[in-house]
Order: sequence, then structure tokens, then C-alpha cells
Amino acid sequence: MVKESVAVIGSGNWGSVAARMAGQSCLEKPDLFERDVPMWVFEEQVDGRNLTDIINEKHENVKYLPGAKFPENVIANPDLIDTVEDATLLIIVIPHQFLPKTLNTLKGHINPKARAVSLIKGVEVVGDNINIFAKVIERELGIRCSALSGANIANEIALEKFSETSIGYADRKDGEIFQKLFDRPYFRVSIVEDVEGVSLCGAMKNIVAIACGFNDGMNWGDNTKAAIMRVGLLEMKRFCQDFFPSCKDATFVEESAGVADLITTCLGGRNRKVAAAHAETGKSFEQLEQEILGGQRLQGTGTAKEIHEFLSHKGKVDNYPLFKTVYEIAFENKPAKELTSRL
Amino acid sequence: MVKESVAVIGSGNWGSVAARMAGQSCLEKPDLFERDVPMWVFEEQVDGRNLTDIINEKHENVKYLPGAKFPENVIANPDLIDTVEDATLLIIVIPHQFLPKTLNTLKGHINPKARAVSLIKGVEVVGDNINIFAKVIERELGIRCSALSGANIANEIALEKFSETSIGYADRKDGEIFQKLFDRPYFRVSIVEDVEGVSLCGAMKNIVAIACGFNDGMNWGDNTKAAIMRVGLLEMKRFCQDFFPSCKDATFVEESAGVADLITTCLGGRNRKVAAAHAETGKSFEQLEQEILGGQRLQGTGTAKEIHEFLSHKGKVDNYPLFKTVYEIAFENKPAKELTSRL
Repeated sequence: MVKESVAVIGSGNWGSVAARMAGQSCLEKPDLFERDVPMWVFEEQVDGRNLTDIINEKHENVKYLPGAKFPENVIANPDLIDTVEDATLLIIVIPHQFLPKTLNTLKGHINPKARAVSLIKGVEVVGDNINIFAKVIERELGIRCSALSGANIANEIALEKFSETSIGYADRKDGEIFQKLFDRPYFRVSIVEDVEGVSLCGAMKNIVAIACGFNDGMNWGDNTKAAIMRVGLLEMKRFCQDFFPSCKDATFVEESAGVADLITTCLGGRNRKVAAAHAETGKSFEQLEQEILGGQRLQGTGTAKEIHEFLSHKGKVDNYPLFKTVYEIAFENKPAKELTSRL
Repeated sequence: MVKESVAVIGSGNWGSVAARMAGQSCLEKPDLFERDVPMWVFEEQVDGRNLTDIINEKHENVKYLPGAKFPENVIANPDLIDTVEDATLLIIVIPHQFLPKTLNTLKGHINPKARAVSLIKGVEVVGDNINIFAKVIERELGIRCSALSGANIANEIALEKFSETSIGYADRKDGEIFQKLFDRPYFRVSIVEDVEGVSLCGAMKNIVAIACGFNDGMNWGDNTKAAIMRVGLLEMKRFCQDFFPSCKDATFVEESAGVADLITTCLGGRNRKVAAAHAETGKSFEQLEQEILGGQRLQGTGTAKEIHEFLSHKGKVDNYPLFKTVYEIAFENKPAKELTSRL
């Protein structure tokens, strides 16, 4: 039996946690996986040293996941092509805005038998065309790509607190091998034949979290918040049924990627937090992204905009009153109180 | 067209809020409803005066819903039979342990054309027999009974913060008239032909909230909590499919009574709070009920016990690992950490 070689593309907070779990599994399951797990790190300087050197010396991503040790078989590598050249299993976990350039670099350097799993949140919208990132990866690299998403706050998983996740696959064998790679005593992986449903849940939950942030900023309370989450889950499900008819209902109501991740994201997280500040202070999201996130872009408003663009092209904006209202509050200066009047 | 006469049986925190909404609707819709809404109050002394006298003078339940004014047409009445004798619509909202005695008193004094709606949480279990309280009311009074349940923290609704609820009906006309009675600009009522699903959600969510309390007391974090809620929702649904096959799936995943109420109850509420204290301190629930609730009984542990008794008689305890584990932690001194190992 041929062993699988794993490589991780990305080393942010979530990427580091994913590499840590994959590294543990590769050590524990030598029959299935090669020992070493190279992890591509976009090189940067920390205290005058290369981040990759620090990671490989301290076995810790001191910048993006401080406090959690990697097993010694996770090896930081600043060279993207060198990282992936032996890999048969690719874990892709980078901010979506860097995906096109990264895929471009990878083209022609991937083992044609490799399979990928995308941990990227969001969707690609061009006019009336919408794609999940797993499909973008398949299109650009010519290999199959699954998707992993769930109620997964990275820092809690780094502490090995119990979590669940979902992997959506197109080919069951892919689902099974990635399940074996990620499954840990503290990380329960379920697999489901629904790449699109798993991916879309991971994108659209962030729109609902923005609405929950408005709720918190307006001090509307838990009844209203639960109503927003209920309506949000239904709009997510309807969106998928309308535009991705292969999505399975069960993904939304039975999977960690569905209702559970929605709950976690609407309780904590940066989308909720920044939206609460918007409703409280009236400051623009752009300004708040500077003040609270040091200029990083918020995923929920970005996705709200993309979904709105897509729905506008389709002439279906009004079918999704919650998504529409979040967009209008975030980008058209509608007051946050519009939200409850349209629920 | 004959107008409906409304009476409220019960005047606790939730009963007072229900009476307040019904009173507002009766004032606003004189074509449909008689003006006055008598509300039965179990008479007690507050500062040396009858609570009913204080309510009728101040239009406020100073003991159970301080700070929220009743409209003047809500009239407290200490005489149960006098309260209901003209009623064609009965709102029944008392603690379930008082239900048998109350129904016994009412027998023979109810307008045979009256219809009731139960706002009572919980189930009646006798051996391998399980009944929702709407059915108990139907059986004892010989009238049809609907059920109302949803993500409804009473104090938020008293402040007229936006909320949703679900009414489960057997006869659509009942659902419609109770919808007209409860619907307010701040209280959105949906109706669904599923008395049992609406009632059972309202009972079983409290077991899941106990589990979420254990999570919080053990400091497991939001990923684990979301996993507990996901598994809890699935066990609730499975329980209903197994023993109440007429229940509709949509009630669990689309109604306020389902997923939304589960969320609200697992975030706040006394069940979660006392269970957290149990996991943190190791004190018995009995002791904590004394210390935190002044001797009042917790609904979640009571329902966990009843469901466990029922499932034991049916030989099906192991089919519901979350319900089983909550029972064992609460009543058989199992450590709270059992919970995640069985998820």
C-alpha cells in the first residue's frame, strides 16, 4: 500500500491548527501517512528572524498560534513549490484573496494524483457566476478537492478542547482519507457527500453573524438573536436549494458545518464583534476594520457583498430579506433597526 | 359573528407576559375579542395586601413581572371558576405540578365550545406512557388544546423586544384564532399543524440546556457547546420520530419552537446556570435548587428524569446518549466529563 504524503498550504491561525492535527495523525498512523508534514509559510520577519526558522526551532508559530507546540514532524517551508512537490494530500488554508496567485504558482507542480481539501471560507462571485473555492481549486489545479468546515474556533482546538467538523467530499475515498488525517480524540470528523453544502455553510454563516452583531449592538436580546439565526439558517438553506440543487438538507441541520458552526460564529467571533460596534457607534465598517482588525477585511461583509452582487444579477435579491438587509445596513447606510422590521 | 372571550389561567412571569399581550390584542381587535381579559391569580400576600388587589390597582404584577404595565382590561381574579366561566379561549400557563389539581377544579365549569392553548413546558410520564400537557388538558377538560412555544424569554417580551413564537394546532381554526390573539408588532406568531412537536421541543430543549451548563461549568468552550446543541437537536428530533410519528421535521429545524428556542435556552436561562454550578462545584442539584432558586425545582433535570423513566420502560435508553448522560450526571453522580466522551 502506498502511503500518502501530506502538505499544508498556509500557516495562519487556522492553518497552524490544521497542520498540528495533521502532524499528530501522521506520527500516529505511519501505515497510512509519511511522517513529515511540510507547511508552506509566507516568509516574514519576527524580531529580526525568519518566521520559518523560528517555527522549525521552537516548533511553534509564535506569530499566529502562540502557545501551541507543533509535533516535530511539521516543518515550515518558505518555498511553495518545494512544499508541495511530493504531496498526495494537500490541505489548502489561506485567505481567499491570496488563492488566485497561489494556485497560479502551483500549476504544473502538483502530483496529478494528489487530492486537496479546502479550509477556505467564502465564495468566488463573477457577475452571475458563483463558485465555491473547492471548485476553483479543482478548475485551476485539475485535481479533486473536498471541503472541511465546522464549529471550529481555532484557539479552542489548539487547546485540544472537544470539537466536531464536517468534510464534504465528491469521491467517498477522498472523504475517508481526509477523515483519517484530521480525526483526533478531541476532533470528531464526519464526512458527507456534499462539497458545496459544507463550503456554502462556511461562507454564508458569516452574513448571519453580522446580523447577530447588529442585534448585540442594538441590545435587542436573545429572543431576537435566536430569531435572526433561525431565519438565517433558512435563507442559507434556500440559497443552496435555489442555486446548488445538489446540496443536501441534512448538511444544514445535522452537520457541524451547518447549524453548529452557525451557532458558534453567531456567539463569538470577529464578524459579530465588529458588526456590534457598527450598530453601537455608527462608524463605517472600513473604519472599524482599521480600528479593531488592524486593517484586515471582515469576511461577513465581504460575503454579504458578493452574495448581493450575485443575487442582483439573478434578479433574486428580494427572496433573501435577511441577506439583503445585512447588505443594505453594511453598505447603504440603512439603520440597523431595519433588521427586525423585515424578519 | 360571535366574539371570543379570553381568560388566562396563571400569572407567573410568563403568564403575566402572555396576559399582557392578550390584553393588548383584545383592546386593539374589538371585532374579534371581548374587551376584558380575566387572569386567575393564586392569591398571596405582598406587603400585607392581596396580590390581586395590587395588580388591579397598579396594573402591574409587582411580584412576578415588576416594571411592565398591563393594559387596564387585564383583570386579576383569585377565583379560578369565576375567571373561566365566560371564556371561549383559555390560555393555560401554570407550573406543571399544579396542573392536575387545577384541571380537577375546572372540570364541569368550562364552556364546552372553549378551546385552550397550553404554554406549559414539560411532559407527563407514567411508566411507559408519555403525554404532552396539551393532551392532558384535552383529556381532562374535553376541549381541544393547542400549544405555544418559542424562543421566548419572558422579560425581553415584556420590554417589547422583537421575538417569534410557534403555535402548534390540531384544528387550523384554533391556530388562526390564537395567532390573532398573540400576534403583536414585537411578537411574531407562526402556526403549524403539530401540537406534539411544538410541545416536545419546549420540554426537551431543557435537557440540552443542562448539558450546555455542564459545558460552561467545565469551561469546554463554544465548539463543544455547539456540538452539544447539534447532537441535542438530533436526539430531540429522533425521540419525536420514534414515539410521536405525527411530529413534523420542520418544527425542529424551521420553527421558533425548535432550533431557535434551543439556542436561546442554551445561552441563558436557569437550567444552563444551575447545571454550570453543578459541574463547577460538585454540589447536588437539590442543594443548588435551594441555594440558587430558593427551593424551586429545575425543569431540565425533571424532564431528563421523566424521559429517562419512559425510555427505560421502552428499553431504549441507549438510543439517546446525550439524554442518558445528562441523567447519569444529574442523578447518578457520573462526572460531567462523561459528556464529551459520549458525544
